[in-house]
Amino acid sequence: MNFHTRKWVKPEDLNPNGTLFGGSLLRWIDEEAAIYAISQLDNQRVVTKFMSEINFVSSARQGDVIELGMTATHFGRTSLTLRAEVRNKITRKSILTVEKMVFVNLDESGEPAPHGRTQIRYADELFEAYRRGKVEAPTASEDEARLEELMH
Amino acid sequence: MNFHTRKWVKPEDLNPNGTLFGGSLLRWIDEEAAIYAISQLDNQRVVTKFMSEINFVSSARQGDVIELGMTATHFGRTSLTLRAEVRNKITRKSILTVEKMVFVNLDESGEPAPHGRTQIRYADELFEAYRRGKVEAPTASEDEARLEELMH
Amino acid sequence: MNFHTRKWVKPEDLNPNGTLFGGSLLRWIDEEAAIYAISQLDNQRVVTKFMSEINFVSSARQGDVIELGMTATHFGRTSLTLRAEVRNKITRKSILTVEKMVFVNLDESGEPAPHGRTQIRYADELFEAYRRGKVEAPTASEDEARLEELMH
Amino acid sequence: MNFHTRKWVKPEDLNPNGTLFGGSLLRWIDEEAAIYAISQLDNQRVVTKFMSEINFVSSARQGDVIELGMTATHFGRTSLTLRAEVRNKITRKSILTVEKMVFVNLDESGEPAPHGRTQIRYADELFEAYRRGKVEAPTASEDEARLEELMH
Amino acid sequence: MNFHTRKWVKPEDLNPNGTLFGGSLLRWIDEEAAIYAISQLDNQRVVTKFMSEINFVSSARQGDVIELGMTATHFGRTSLTLRAEVRNKITRKSILTVEKMVFVNLDESGEPAPHGRTQIRYADELFEAYRRGKVEAPTASEDEARLEELMH
Amino acid sequence: MNFHTRKWVKPEDLNPNGTLFGGSLLRWIDEEAAIYAISQLDNQRVVTKFMSEINFVSSARQGDVIELGMTATHFGRTSLTLRAEVRNKITRKSILTVEKMVFVNLDESGEPAPHGRTQIRYADELFEAYRRGKVEAPTASEDEARLEELMH
Repeated sequence: MNFHTRKWVKPEDLNPNGTLFGGSLLRWIDEEAAIYAISQLDNQRVVTKFMSEINFVSSARQGDVIELGMTATHFGRTSLTLRAEVRNKITRKSILTVEKMVFVNLDESGEPAPHGRTQIRYADELFEAYRRGKVEAPTASEDEARLEELMH
Repeated sequence: MNFHTRKWVKPEDLNPNGTLFGGSLLRWIDEEAAIYAISQLDNQRVVTKFMSEINFVSSARQGDVIELGMTATHFGRTSLTLRAEVRNKITRKSILTVEKMVFVNLDESGEPAPHGRTQIRYADELFEAYRRGKVEAPTASEDEARLEELMH
Repeated sequence: MNFHTRKWVKPEDLNPNGTLFGGSLLRWIDEEAAIYAISQLDNQRVVTKFMSEINFVSSARQGDVIELGMTATHFGRTSLTLRAEVRNKITRKSILTVEKMVFVNLDESGEPAPHGRTQIRYADELFEAYRRGKVEAPTASEDEARLEELMH
Repeated sequence: MNFHTRKWVKPEDLNPNGTLFGGSLLRWIDEEAAIYAISQLDNQRVVTKFMSEINFVSSARQGDVIELGMTATHFGRTSLTLRAEVRNKITRKSILTVEKMVFVNLDESGEPAPHGRTQIRYADELFEAYRRGKVEAPTASEDEARLEELMH
Repeated sequence: MNFHTRKWVKPEDLNPNGTLFGGSLLRWIDEEAAIYAISQLDNQRVVTKFMSEINFVSSARQGDVIELGMTATHFGRTSLTLRAEVRNKITRKSILTVEKMVFVNLDESGEPAPHGRTQIRYADELFEAYRRGKVEAPTASEDEARLEELMH
Repeated sequence: MNFHTRKWVKPEDLNPNGTLFGGSLLRWIDEEAAIYAISQLDNQRVVTKFMSEINFVSSARQGDVIELGMTATHFGRTSLTLRAEVRNKITRKSILTVEKMVFVNLDESGEPAPHGRTQIRYADELFEAYRRGKVEAPTASEDEARLEELMH
């Protein structure tokens, strides 16, 4: 598992008991997981469909530096499953693990679509693919019909 | 299930695809669930220990009014399990369900402690208990030793 | 008066004196009042026109759970007047009252328009009306010309 | 009336109709009014007690630059009353006026205390008074007993 | 140098060491500088191109009132250079200075364009020019093609 | 240069022109640089003293995934100088570079203190040092006298 994004726990991230607010933590994980899925699937039209078993192993305090790790655990035909962990950057003590987050890859009409990926692609490979013109940088387009409407 | 807290989906709550950002939604649920647990257990020293199976049923768009519902599903000796649902306030279409969120009741030294509750207490009962002096309004005390330190 | 939305006072909500920042409180009330007006009038094109007499009765501290209540006090031809109160959820001690908030109902061209409502409609009635196709779920439409331009 | 603080209306400040969210505006006014009262009374222990008659004259849109003005309208023995206006910085078109905001000056035990001021003091006078040692820079002290406790 | 916008340092603005978070401060300066450039150039299509030499002279604490000052130091053909300072509002002790911030004035196609300004224009002059119809209130237009696309 | 922290550009991060708000970007860099300095020096008592020459090379749009990179460029006796870059995660196109950010290492009394480091320490080395008991996990301590007071 590769750990990338780091956070420095600030007063704005605390719950009234003075420890890291779980809601802030979940917000950070959701963003990092979406970034991971977008990068793996070269597609910004991905949606979270399922999240399972979040274990709150320990807490974090103001001033702690934490880091978020993600790894793909299963490439389905139209889905990607990943596992996430948050830990203290220095002590590597686990703070929270999410066993499974399932993302679905959508086509332009918002239907689940095969993504063609079968294994983890690392940043250098992705950049190589980009340079050779095999992938585009995914970005949100305003004239893409609203994803939500298409989905339902 | 009683639905209380409402949110009006604003631009600051959107993901780059223009629908409600899942991280914002999880943040709202975590706060509402903590409020529910604190109210049921008359104790602010409660911690989330486990969250399981989040189904993202549908999405929400800018301008939607959504509401969050919670209900206790199991009172353990020192724990409380609840189920949560988020839905559109007008259409009542489900947006997300969380099957289980487990909170643990802690004593002043941060150890799991029996909470003595066995069934759901409604707001009026809680207020009655408060008026008869049987419960105190829980509030975060600065000189309560740091919850986190006690827990580990 | 029905109290729905709850808030858990967190460090991010405090003023430098360590009590609940009045600006945060006013922000919460404005959102809840808009939600109430939208729900009563089945229309998202409502604007606040007047707010009168806010009494700051007591304060709130970090860790307090507070709840916001709204009730319609007058249905004009094109307007809706409501009264709001914020109180501690456990002790029911009043924190703030707003005597009058006046919302105006607008049509698609942004002009004040009769809303046809004469009394409070509760959530179940609203859902019934929705199911029978008598109301639509109001939502912000992108191609509705900018509300602001129409208003002036 | 002197206009000082400016804001540039950004997407994070909008309501779902795409105009400036009233709650954001109220939050800005409350902060600016507190700053004004603190500066006039040389005391950070001031609390808002009353706010009356807010007229929402016009709206603001994304990209507008707005400015906030304050002026003291009455110096009571222990209170200060001020009037506030928000307007477009370029066109000077009024966006919102607040007729009266009443702040109360507190002593160290949180009781209303005479402030000794009878007229508006401008920034230069305040700085002069500071240089001559007649006023101190007010700042929140941690060991000042919690203002809230003292007040009730 | 004129000081306008003020901020009251709140818990949400602190770093984990309990002093004003530098990132919050930089965010405030960037907004205020953009407002200044927009006002001077009557144009909202301005972009920051360069920022140089930020000296962190002293810190600020929770409860401090600070103010931000800007002054134009050079009018180029298509650029505007300004100097910024942040200081304590009461003591006038400097907190941070930014020697140079360079903004570029863009035309509708996003190319650097002459702005025709050669000296500082004060608020009253700007309002006069507006009243005589010589300037328009700049505002972000949705149908202005995306600035970013034009720039690259 | 190692790139770690990633951000997904969301509506809340935009300026009124619809591109990434420079203030948000500066806020992210400041946090990431502080995390880097804390990790290199095993000390949370570090303060930014100087920042020089920020080049805004290109912009970012809603939906872009960007990443932040840091590298130490000079270890002084009591200071650490680093260089930062922000780029698009897929295209690796540079968005912003900061030539120099200087942090100063402080002792418990807030005075500049030798840090004893002379070269970059990678995450694995840091964890090894931690395991062998040679470093402690730095964290903000409440009873560390306020850093700010000590500094002045």
